[in-house]
Amino acid sequence: MSTRQHKVATDYRTLQQTICQRLEQADGGAIFTTDHWTKDIGEGYTMVFQEGNAIEKAAVNFSAVSGPVSERIRQALKIDDGQEYFASGISSIIHPRNPHAPITHMNVRYFQLSSGISWFGGGIDLTPHYVDKKEAGWFHRELKTVCDRFNADYYPNFKKWADDYFYLNHRAETRGVGGIFFDHQQAGDDLAFEQLFAFTKDLAQAYPRIYIELLNANRNKAFSEAEKKWQYLRRGRYVEFNLLYDRGTKFGLESNGRTESIFLSMPPMASWAYDYQPEPGSREEETSNLLKKDIGWISF
Amino acid sequence: MSTRQHKVATDYRTLQQTICQRLEQADGGAIFTTDHWTKDIGEGYTMVFQEGNAIEKAAVNFSAVSGPVSERIRQALKIDDGQEYFASGISSIIHPRNPHAPITHMNVRYFQLSSGISWFGGGIDLTPHYVDKKEAGWFHRELKTVCDRFNADYYPNFKKWADDYFYLNHRAETRGVGGIFFDHQQAGDDLAFEQLFAFTKDLAQAYPRIYIELLNANRNKAFSEAEKKWQYLRRGRYVEFNLLYDRGTKFGLESNGRTESIFLSMPPMASWAYDYQPEPGSREEETSNLLKKDIGWISF
Repeated sequence: MSTRQHKVATDYRTLQQTICQRLEQADGGAIFTTDHWTKDIGEGYTMVFQEGNAIEKAAVNFSAVSGPVSERIRQALKIDDGQEYFASGISSIIHPRNPHAPITHMNVRYFQLSSGISWFGGGIDLTPHYVDKKEAGWFHRELKTVCDRFNADYYPNFKKWADDYFYLNHRAETRGVGGIFFDHQQAGDDLAFEQLFAFTKDLAQAYPRIYIELLNANRNKAFSEAEKKWQYLRRGRYVEFNLLYDRGTKFGLESNGRTESIFLSMPPMASWAYDYQPEPGSREEETSNLLKKDIGWISF
Repeated sequence: MSTRQHKVATDYRTLQQTICQRLEQADGGAIFTTDHWTKDIGEGYTMVFQEGNAIEKAAVNFSAVSGPVSERIRQALKIDDGQEYFASGISSIIHPRNPHAPITHMNVRYFQLSSGISWFGGGIDLTPHYVDKKEAGWFHRELKTVCDRFNADYYPNFKKWADDYFYLNHRAETRGVGGIFFDHQQAGDDLAFEQLFAFTKDLAQAYPRIYIELLNANRNKAFSEAEKKWQYLRRGRYVEFNLLYDRGTKFGLESNGRTESIFLSMPPMASWAYDYQPEPGSREEETSNLLKKDIGWISF
């Protein structure tokens, strides 16, 4: 590992532990288990808990892997250069118990090719089972605040990117209310590297703080059996996104990663119902109608 | 539609109705609802019921579609010829309520390119939540009997094909105990067409008979909460297969098919648990150990 690679891997691993501590404190019940795994391609720490007080499943993955760029990775990542790669990142997902609390996901990652090209990618996005416009607005403003510390173009550009990326084409719906997503942010010279590295670390820091605020606002709300069923259906869409579109899943499978770690993002329980149509005027219908691109959440 | 196309579509649609009648009789509770859909690419009948007495979800799809071969379809089907395609088929899936009863799936399909090339594909396979060797053996022998009426090579060849096809590479496990699978069986001249067409119709006929036998043998067995949980986990693997590997799903999505019909195969409820390991010596472990290719089921 080069100095840069070592620095990224070390800081990301530390951040993983910080995130887990905060989530444990917030949940107040569950404790993360840690699996340290090593494979031919590298190593990782998979931290997960299920059946917490407020959180049904929380997962935070860290890995640092390297190897030759296979034809399948080349296709998955749409790159046409480089013989060897190094990749390190954190990814996390939280499935709350209460259907009024949202699902969230965060990922930051660094990728480097032996040709010298390197970049950062990542994002944070929110998937409410029931969209609350005010909460979605607050969430987006929090992300904008982090982005604006680095570059005024980040939020508008990466918000649009999230709308396009977190999109289920076959359903013609967004995964949730989006957030920010970015990839291939070139980290060629040291200045660009330091700036982007700091940006991804700030995002990973902000992630538990932002989520815990939303969790606490909703964790004790009463919910019905029907609302829990709706949650399972929305989780079904989450599964569809992860298996059909998600780049991390694709890269993990193509690079022969550790399956149990790749699939950490899966919900504990999900369901599918044929041609489910929410009742007119219901909150379920309202949510369905808000799963669209190009909504100016920030102004809510 | 040519005469041949019309014949295939008509007979398959009739078979779909026969299958549904038999499943309704067997379940004794649920009635199929029928959705007739039309899109620019063609039409279909989606027949489905949920929450039956013995069957949690039964789905039988019929469609007849045609259109230009897009680049994405070309890749999905690995074909390099033809400007227009016609496709018609039936596909079905059954998710039973009792975890001791197996999931099953059947598909027969006819595909024709404007270049004149045409072929049949299809198969029947079984995914027990708990593998019962005797039942798996009986199931394979029933399939062999149908195959042998047409060609003594069919069963051994198509059994191996099913082992290879119904395989979750990222889990290093088969979807279940397999069955038969075949594709690209050229139906160029009339004799080949008639033989293969009759074979696919015999398979579709045999499908409800074989499944109902296995359902009835297991539908009233007692089961525990833990066994139901195991069923949900196995269904999670089923979802993984369908979204990551299934050719029908891929073709449906790539050809801009009707999403609700493509996703009919999804289980009503599925779950994922991080790094679940069955207890040593348990029936769950025994099943896991039997999810392998090249088991000579027929001799059990």
